[in-house]
Amino acid sequence: MNCPADYPRKSLKDCLKLIGPYVNRTPVMHSRLTDERAGAELYFKCENFQRGGSYKLRGATHAILRLQQKAPLSGVVTHSSGNFAQALSLAANALEIPAHIVMPRTAPEVKKAAVRSYGGHILECEPEVAAREAAADAMQKRTGGVLIHPSDDPQVMLGQGTAAMELLEEIPDLECIIAPVGGGGLLGGTCLAAHHYAKDCELFGAEPFAVDDAYRSLKSGKIESNETTDTMADGLKTVLGNYTFPVIRKHVKEILRVEEQEIAEAMKWIWERMKLVVEPSSAVTLAAIFRYPEYFRGKKVGIIISGGNVDLGKLPF
Amino acid sequence: MNCPADYPRKSLKDCLKLIGPYVNRTPVMHSRLTDERAGAELYFKCENFQRGGSYKLRGATHAILRLQQKAPLSGVVTHSSGNFAQALSLAANALEIPAHIVMPRTAPEVKKAAVRSYGGHILECEPEVAAREAAADAMQKRTGGVLIHPSDDPQVMLGQGTAAMELLEEIPDLECIIAPVGGGGLLGGTCLAAHHYAKDCELFGAEPFAVDDAYRSLKSGKIESNETTDTMADGLKTVLGNYTFPVIRKHVKEILRVEEQEIAEAMKWIWERMKLVVEPSSAVTLAAIFRYPEYFRGKKVGIIISGGNVDLGKLPF
Repeated sequence: MNCPADYPRKSLKDCLKLIGPYVNRTPVMHSRLTDERAGAELYFKCENFQRGGSYKLRGATHAILRLQQKAPLSGVVTHSSGNFAQALSLAANALEIPAHIVMPRTAPEVKKAAVRSYGGHILECEPEVAAREAAADAMQKRTGGVLIHPSDDPQVMLGQGTAAMELLEEIPDLECIIAPVGGGGLLGGTCLAAHHYAKDCELFGAEPFAVDDAYRSLKSGKIESNETTDTMADGLKTVLGNYTFPVIRKHVKEILRVEEQEIAEAMKWIWERMKLVVEPSSAVTLAAIFRYPEYFRGKKVGIIISGGNVDLGKLPF
Repeated sequence: MNCPADYPRKSLKDCLKLIGPYVNRTPVMHSRLTDERAGAELYFKCENFQRGGSYKLRGATHAILRLQQKAPLSGVVTHSSGNFAQALSLAANALEIPAHIVMPRTAPEVKKAAVRSYGGHILECEPEVAAREAAADAMQKRTGGVLIHPSDDPQVMLGQGTAAMELLEEIPDLECIIAPVGGGGLLGGTCLAAHHYAKDCELFGAEPFAVDDAYRSLKSGKIESNETTDTMADGLKTVLGNYTFPVIRKHVKEILRVEEQEIAEAMKWIWERMKLVVEPSSAVTLAAIFRYPEYFRGKKVGIIISGGNVDLGKLPF
């Protein structure tokens, strides 16, 4: 693999400076009630308040800006039905290039509407992976746009790491940071930020038992996949990639797995007690802290709340 | 009436200093999407993030501290089934005195549990107003506790005004502020804060058509009541009092009324687009801004989000 497990500190610093004008500096929230229950001091970096409703805008913006530094860009292409589709549309819109989003025709209408509202152009395809890839290929050829992967791209991963960078600027003495892990862009970026900007900070990933590919990948030493993807945490169904895996493998202490009902319960806690609308994929981290207190008790813990895009008509509680 | 419509600037300043150690300084949030829809620049003072889930902790804490300055206090009593019951329990707990809460036996179990979790002692009574008042009287006699009214008390009103004070410290050039109006403690306090800390700032109250007593009171020049209280905004069913009415009458430009479905729609907007859990009583303000754009278009507007205590099992959308 031609990818180092560390990136220079400067690349993160430059990234934050570059994307700064296009992204929100999101608040860090704190909750006495949650601290009491967890027996730890928790700091929530609230990317649910990010533009587009998730941290994904950071990586999408960074990837486009880096491409634009090299050459004029006629557009970008991705295949995603989730938060990255919205984020890339929003980022491309701000940077005045078209975004072409390949989405399965079975994707919920509400997600298609969100992409359109941010200015993205949708190309519908059959839901199978092969069909999605073929459609994305064809779209690149037709439009001259550049394909951007939702997570397994060094510039995307660096962009996602700026959330943890900002968190560490505010709370420099965090002893642990935990982030959800799907494709690994957020967790990988978080690792890089902690590696360069924290001291003795332990890194954790959290994922559902139902899609525990990251847990198994760290055990086996190679990228594992999921046979089924039956989880409410719809942002965490993807698997690690060639850029994210080595970073996570080097820096992460443990991938913590949680049950579906624990995700729903933690999500309800965050809504009810902390008054934050977060999506199931974000609640896996607090669920992991509640399930495995031995890692966190008495410590200062950073939590990356990844997003708040949720269908209010289909709550899991 | 022996109550002035203004209070000295110093009383507000002293109040904020006094309660500062016991209350959260809540964040001010901003949303581009909401600004676009409203055609105005909106600043949301998020008291849903206050301890106890609403602004009521401010007034409750202030009332107790002022009483304690005069003489040792053996306890406090109130009758409330809503946010004030929780707030008084929490404030009394922090100040190490007992809080006795008279609640109708028909109040939802979740509200009773919240009061108990904050250390309040509940006395159940029949739901009629006369029974509640009799029970509160008896409780005062039995415990020697002092009755604190949820809204119509000068110290409570001043305490609630500190939310707008903090908002104006952050955004000094607000051209309007809008707050929900039930008993008038929050709106009255907001008026006092704007009177002393803002320049040419117009004040608005918002309430449901279903309980438009404040609107009618300002028209008739005397405190009006509601014949029925059929609204989802359960914090706004109460009526103005002898202390709050003259303040509101002097300072408020207009009471804006909204329909139930407008409240539900604005609440959903705040949850979905701003990722904030707010209660229906808080959504009346944004509903009013959407309904009556002529008052707000192009202006810098402060909005007091009063609280986020809501039953997730009974959402109005």
